[in-house]
Amino acid sequence: MKAALLVIDIQNDFFGISQACADSLKSAIEYVNAASGLFRRKKLPVVIVQHRREADNLVPGKPGFDVSDAVKVEAGDLRIVKEYGNSFKKTGLTEKLKELGVDTVVLTGFCAEQCVLSTYKGAEDLDLKPIILKGAIASVNPEHVRFVEEITETVTLGALEALL
Amino acid sequence: MKAALLVIDIQNDFFGISQACADSLKSAIEYVNAASGLFRRKKLPVVIVQHRREADNLVPGKPGFDVSDAVKVEAGDLRIVKEYGNSFKKTGLTEKLKELGVDTVVLTGFCAEQCVLSTYKGAEDLDLKPIILKGAIASVNPEHVRFVEEITETVTLGALEALL
Amino acid sequence: MKAALLVIDIQNDFFGISQACADSLKSAIEYVNAASGLFRRKKLPVVIVQHRREADNLVPGKPGFDVSDAVKVEAGDLRIVKEYGNSFKKTGLTEKLKELGVDTVVLTGFCAEQCVLSTYKGAEDLDLKPIILKGAIASVNPEHVRFVEEITETVTLGALEALL
Amino acid sequence: MKAALLVIDIQNDFFGISQACADSLKSAIEYVNAASGLFRRKKLPVVIVQHRREADNLVPGKPGFDVSDAVKVEAGDLRIVKEYGNSFKKTGLTEKLKELGVDTVVLTGFCAEQCVLSTYKGAEDLDLKPIILKGAIASVNPEHVRFVEEITETVTLGALEALL
Repeated sequence: MKAALLVIDIQNDFFGISQACADSLKSAIEYVNAASGLFRRKKLPVVIVQHRREADNLVPGKPGFDVSDAVKVEAGDLRIVKEYGNSFKKTGLTEKLKELGVDTVVLTGFCAEQCVLSTYKGAEDLDLKPIILKGAIASVNPEHVRFVEEITETVTLGALEALL
Repeated sequence: MKAALLVIDIQNDFFGISQACADSLKSAIEYVNAASGLFRRKKLPVVIVQHRREADNLVPGKPGFDVSDAVKVEAGDLRIVKEYGNSFKKTGLTEKLKELGVDTVVLTGFCAEQCVLSTYKGAEDLDLKPIILKGAIASVNPEHVRFVEEITETVTLGALEALL
Repeated sequence: MKAALLVIDIQNDFFGISQACADSLKSAIEYVNAASGLFRRKKLPVVIVQHRREADNLVPGKPGFDVSDAVKVEAGDLRIVKEYGNSFKKTGLTEKLKELGVDTVVLTGFCAEQCVLSTYKGAEDLDLKPIILKGAIASVNPEHVRFVEEITETVTLGALEALL
Repeated sequence: MKAALLVIDIQNDFFGISQACADSLKSAIEYVNAASGLFRRKKLPVVIVQHRREADNLVPGKPGFDVSDAVKVEAGDLRIVKEYGNSFKKTGLTEKLKELGVDTVVLTGFCAEQCVLSTYKGAEDLDLKPIILKGAIASVNPEHVRFVEEITETVTLGALEALL
């Protein structure tokens, strides 16, 4: 087993959606940073994903497009930009992960029931085993976080530290 | 990391407590059997735990003491009998697991908020990392299952298959 | 029967976790102080427990480590510092209580589902009878207080006053 | 402190009110019998209380008036018949308990929010300390049991065993 961590769409723009959404993102970031630290110590890939959407002015060069400063990003992290919910769709990520021998992806980020869940489903299509890190996914609606955690394979941070 | 699976107190006597309790046990056993199959394929220890309590006639030789036939037990499994909630208390299990180099215990069985949770806390005291297998713990009260899964480190079966 | 009161981890640092957590602690402290007054009047031991954790800078000398000023502590109280959830683990508390002839421990403090519950399970392993004082345990999540009170032996303050 | 146990109105007639009521009574009786055994071992008084109401044909000689066979009654138990909710009202019970030096009453039985609660309030008027035994009171409406346990001083059976 070789796992990679995906940090999906924790971009500045999304903190402005609502206070509940910003709170959900802040809470998730604590788990994301703990997990990325763990993956880097284990020499396992960390992938930072950003969403691009012309219509919403969510494009490189705009501050809203940038990953939140609260997320710890390092020089060795992989970076991808996507235009679909599914992080594997037309991004080259699949090839990169297969090259690295990755067969399992631990998913974190935003938005739980949209891009995170689409990436989860996308991983299944590619025979990559997806796992949601509990506490590390955010949404406008906290109930959606709970629901996504209920319908997917999940692991808590402490259990992941033990099993990885 | 080396993990062992603990299958706690799935004994015939407890199916008679109530229909809800029997249903909870039956549902958990499906996960227990899938997990024990996984551990055996990986050559990792499976430990079958039974509770002994003189006062309730829960003693070797009585049918109520036996592990349910629905639980798949194999010749190579470790067997222990306990008299405390904590499976590590006066059972010799700690020594057996340390000898085998086990540092992580995946917990399943009955009763979620009593013997399983006592064993979880007991593992922490011994610097063994405890993880609850989601869906694999049973209780008289289904709400207690949910709660124990909430306050502990957990992993789902699919995630465990990927990570082990 | 001889009981001791344990006041677990009501340390300054934990008030900063969230407003809900601070509120839960403040509410519990009223019961803790009433109970410690009762135990002292009865010449029964009061034990003040503090958690030490290097990684979080929760160490003697740091203000976050200190017991909250709102908790009434007296010169004759026993003091222990622990590094596990279980207050009996590597603290010498077991020996102290056995010397004093204590066979029952009334538990109060923080955090209900972690250190308090770990200490409850730890007491069972030592054949000390643990009892939770209702209203006197705190948590980040009030629902966890309710649940811990549901799965343990409990007594209300007024009933304890009558029975002690 | 000297406690007496009151077993209030567990009479055959009340099992016919509804299935929920019969279930509530059956569940309470397990706790009642465990508690009465404990009180007898400690040589503490057990008081069996029966309600008499002419209008409902709930009178001595009618089978509905009798205490349920499931309740363990012994020759040395005190017996009283009441016509008010409050077991102390015009029954002579106060005098009997004062003679015996009782200052605390542990209450069990039926119906939680009526006769049990009236007796609780009556005890307060007499400077007898009332305590509800958790799990040992029954009602037509289970929510009422929960509510009475919430507004009164309570103790669980295990805690009572430790403290008595």
